[in-house]
Formats: sequence, C-alpha cells, structure tokens
Amino acid sequence: MFLIGELINSTRKRIRTAVESHDAAYIQDVARRQAEAGAQMLDVNGGIPGREPEVLCWLVETVQQAVDLPLCLDSSDPLALRRALPLCKQRPMINSINDEPERFDAVLPLVKEFGTKVIALCMGAAGPPSRLEDRLETAARLVDRLTAAGVALDDIYVDPCVLPVSTGPDHGRFVAEAVGQICARYPGVHTSVGLSNVSFGLPCRKLLNEVFLVLLMSRGLDAAIADPCDRRLMACIFAAEALLGRDEYCVEYLRAYREGKLEPPPESAAGAAR
Amino acid sequence: MFLIGELINSTRKRIRTAVESHDAAYIQDVARRQAEAGAQMLDVNGGIPGREPEVLCWLVETVQQAVDLPLCLDSSDPLALRRALPLCKQRPMINSINDEPERFDAVLPLVKEFGTKVIALCMGAAGPPSRLEDRLETAARLVDRLTAAGVALDDIYVDPCVLPVSTGPDHGRFVAEAVGQICARYPGVHTSVGLSNVSFGLPCRKLLNEVFLVLLMSRGLDAAIADPCDRRLMACIFAAEALLGRDEYCVEYLRAYREGKLEPPPESAAGAAR
Repeated sequence: MFLIGELINSTRKRIRTAVESHDAAYIQDVARRQAEAGAQMLDVNGGIPGREPEVLCWLVETVQQAVDLPLCLDSSDPLALRRALPLCKQRPMINSINDEPERFDAVLPLVKEFGTKVIALCMGAAGPPSRLEDRLETAARLVDRLTAAGVALDDIYVDPCVLPVSTGPDHGRFVAEAVGQICARYPGVHTSVGLSNVSFGLPCRKLLNEVFLVLLMSRGLDAAIADPCDRRLMACIFAAEALLGRDEYCVEYLRAYREGKLEPPPESAAGAAR
Repeated sequence: MFLIGELINSTRKRIRTAVESHDAAYIQDVARRQAEAGAQMLDVNGGIPGREPEVLCWLVETVQQAVDLPLCLDSSDPLALRRALPLCKQRPMINSINDEPERFDAVLPLVKEFGTKVIALCMGAAGPPSRLEDRLETAARLVDRLTAAGVALDDIYVDPCVLPVSTGPDHGRFVAEAVGQICARYPGVHTSVGLSNVSFGLPCRKLLNEVFLVLLMSRGLDAAIADPCDRRLMACIFAAEALLGRDEYCVEYLRAYREGKLEPPPESAAGAAR
C-alpha cells in the first residue's frame, strides 16, 4: 500500500493558521510525524484563495527542509503547479488531472514536462460521478488519453472519486466495484482514493475510513491519501497486506507487531478509560 | 451479515470444563452474552471424544433453555447430529457437509429429513484445499449435488475452508477470491467462513480476524462463524454494511452508534491504559 499523508492541507483549520502565520516549525512537525508513521509520500495543498501559487511553493520548500519524502502537489490551479513543480527535489505526483477539458489540457503538459506521477480523478465536466458506469467510462477515457500521450501506466493512479456514503447508499460499493474493474481492465495501473471523504457527515469516521480502506484493498487498491498518524488505520493495512498475500511469511506484519504498531494507541486508550 | 456465535465449542478449554462438570449456568451465560452481542445463530460443538452424541444433546437443551436463537450443530459425527437434530426448537444448520464421500452420504439424509440449512465445506477426501482451484471445484460439486438432491440454494452456506495465513501466504487471498467467484457463479447461495482459523499462530489475532472479515465482505461474504462478543468485530460489520450499500441511509450504523456499539470496549481500553 502506497500511503500518501493527507495532513498538510490548507483547507484544514490548523494548517491554514500555520500557513497564514508562516509557522514553518508546525508544518515541519506534521511532515515529520507523517514520515515517522510510515507515509511514503506527502500531499501538500495550498488552497488559500488568491494566494495558492505562493502558498504551495512555501509549503513545498518548508516540508522538504524537514523530510526526505516525495510530494503530491494537490491543486486545481495549473499556475500553482507550474511554480511549485521545479522546486520538488524528488519526482512528484500531481493531484489531480480529470476529464474536464480545461483541466485536462492544462495539467497534461505539466505531467509530461516534469515527468510526474499523476492522480487521474474520475470526474468530468458534469461534476462528481453518481453511477458506477460514469466512473468506469471516465477512468477508461483518462487512462487511454494519458497513455496515448506517453504517460506510463505505472505513473497513473486512477481515483474513482469517493463521495460520502451519508449522501448515497451506493457511493461506497460503486467505488469498490470500480477499483476491481479498473484493475482488471488495465493491469499495471494503480488505483488510489481520497479516503476520508467516504465518512463525511457520519460519526466514528476513523472506523469507517479503516473499514473502507480494507474493503478497497480487497478489490486491488494499492494507494491512498489518508492519515498515516491513525495507528489503527496503519495496523489494518499491515493486517490486510498479510492476509492478501502481499507480505510473504507475514514478515512486515510481525515486524510491525514487534515495534508495537499493531496495538491500540496508548493515548486514545487512556482517553477512553478516563 | 449473518453472524453465528462461535463460543460454545467443547474444544475450548473453558467450555470443556463446563461440559465436564455439567455447569449449565456457565454455558447459558455464554449463550446469553452472544445473543445480546448480536449473534443470530449459535454454533454448538460437543466434540469430546467418545461422548459427542450425549454432549451435543445436552448442549442443545441447555442453550435452548437460555436463548431463543436457532442453533448450528457443529459435529463430524452423524450419530451425534441424528440424536441432537430432533431436539432443536428452531430450524437448525448443520456444520458441516463436505466432499468426503462417507461424510457426504451420511449428512445429506439428515439435511433432507430435518430440512436444515447446511454449511458446505470445501474439503474432500484429500484433506484441506491448498489451491484456489481446489476450493472452486469442490464448491461447485457440493452445490450441484446438494441442489440436485433438492436442497434450496438459500439453505446452502459454502465455506471455502479458511487455513491459517501463517502457514501459507496465499491462504487468505485464495479464500477471498473463492468467495467472489462462488457468489458470481451461484447467485443466491450464501458463503460463510470459520473466521478465526485465519489468524492461528500469529499475534494480534483479533485485528487479523476483523480485517479478514471485511476483506471477505467486500467479495460478497454474507455469513461467518465468529465471536460476537468482540465489539470491534461487530463495529467493523456495521461499518462494512453501511459502506457496501447493505444498510440504506446508514440506519443500522447510526443505531449502533447511539447504542455505544461503535466505540472501543471500555474494559479493553482501561486494560491498555494500565
């Protein structure tokens, strides 16, 4: 499982406050904590209206001073991407290209010029997909156009577009089914989700996020933007990899056990006992 | 998810002790706790060598004095089944028929005579299946023969035979794949597993059991023999049902939340904090 840490996102209040006060130490602490928790890449989102290019560049430089991980530039602003991409020390990912004509045409040249990985979000001009078929058609169109343009399958992370299950009972199972069908149709392509969207509006969001990730891993999901500091989520990933035969002889599972990563987090247990 | 409580099993030390001392109160307490925790059926196993018919009958009568649930008679001894079946107040399940000729021929008449549900375990004369294909072939043979004999698909619970993932890296994914293919080939048939076998020999067994159940639910599993008193397992089931569109508008999930069933168990949190 390729885990992309989600926490450095300027639409989150604490990050936005840190960005606005140029609190590099706080951002770097969040970056370090995600790296230590096992993130293999960090998402950085500088989505503050009117200031996105400047903020994204500051975040990229600030985070890279603290950790050695590649970055996933999370922006719908091609100008912000163009300014931030040359600053990346390691090969970055763009989050995301989609099937809106304007977005596609603006992002593809950046993918090519900077040789990035790219999240291909199953969303078109009509907005978020409501049906399974919408997701599959958009996925096929995106993968076919990206590969025709010379992007390697191995650099494409198809995101079936996770919507809150509180807003439609089929949103979860359509994404699960889409992951399975996309993996079957394009062997070698990756699939990824923005995990926490699924639980928006419901209680016990971490439980839903953890269970949804496992449901999707069962269908072939191999990447996710999620919170690596959620210890239970990480424990579920170790368990799922062992159970799905992706961790031969349970080597990683047993290592995680010895390092204490499979137990409940001591702080939350203490909190619950109070 | 049709959850069959696993705890009244005479191969477990505490149950065996209770059976040997005719401690009906202890057995009935375990029965009540499983019913209150949400089990929809209770497995009863009287597997004490040489005494199985007598023990199974005692367990059936003892449990039925305490709870109103149907029972799953867990025995490889046709004589024990024949003695215990007439005692069942509600329509029981037999655990299990399999593809060993002697077992098949001995159990099928009981299924027919008593109109039971039946677990069809994917195991033949050669012993436990090692490959995916073995499971699929045995499943097909069992379902075809049972339905040809007049057993309704809706009364058949195919068990792909869960083996410990510690003894082979593919055991988990083969079962997951088998569940998906069996559901696709026989719409209307049920699939079930003896869940806790998967984690034998590994640490943090509950974590593995919970994650494995979710992995299998993603492929269509709709029944399991498991521990309903594992609160986290039950919480995972509520979450998975909501995420898979089997709990419209998350009604059951929200009810479970209001009843405090989705939170970590207070006793284990207190234990971890000590």
